[in-house]
Amino acid sequence: MSPAPQAAATTRPDDVLPVAGLLEVLEALADPVRLEMVRRLDPDGTPAPCAALYDGVGKSTASHHFKILREAGVIERSVVGGKTHHALRLDAVEDRHPGLLRGVLASRY
Amino acid sequence: MSPAPQAAATTRPDDVLPVAGLLEVLEALADPVRLEMVRRLDPDGTPAPCAALYDGVGKSTASHHFKILREAGVIERSVVGGKTHHALRLDAVEDRHPGLLRGVLASRY
Repeated sequence: MSPAPQAAATTRPDDVLPVAGLLEVLEALADPVRLEMVRRLDPDGTPAPCAALYDGVGKSTASHHFKILREAGVIERSVVGGKTHHALRLDAVEDRHPGLLRGVLASRY
Repeated sequence: MSPAPQAAATTRPDDVLPVAGLLEVLEALADPVRLEMVRRLDPDGTPAPCAALYDGVGKSTASHHFKILREAGVIERSVVGGKTHHALRLDAVEDRHPGLLRGVLASRY
């Protein structure tokens, strides 16, 4: 029996990491490329394809920044239709550091 | 006529800077020495003497960190009884980036 189409299209590998401590989360957010990635992600956690989340840096630089965000527990990675996507983990970050990420998302300057 | 004792003891030079944009505030907070300085400051804005705000770094390193926090508008400097003090500008930072600094202060890990 083949899996349901949704299950085949989306996989979640074991890279949903615990939300890091405050300093590591601040360090992850305190970078212009990564802050822009976080701002472009949907706060409701809908995955977005990598390429939609940055401009002006190369793919390997972007991968490095995604890794830092993922290791801080701020985003999670999934594969949708064979393409890597990222999603914001707003609830998880808010559980550990209430107000912090909401404050970052609300601030527009 | 001599000034009132309080006026003589405390001076506020022109170094109360505007609260910076989000990225600069995050960069100011995303450092272990500076995060500790901010955590040791009274949220109500009572000035504390420099030396009470750090351990394990030299005076000139500490001055460098105070400068970064001051230039981001997170702290202000005053002179009390001839000694440099710093105070947290929680309300000013919250005005510009609601939730951010309160979130940082509330998070203990």
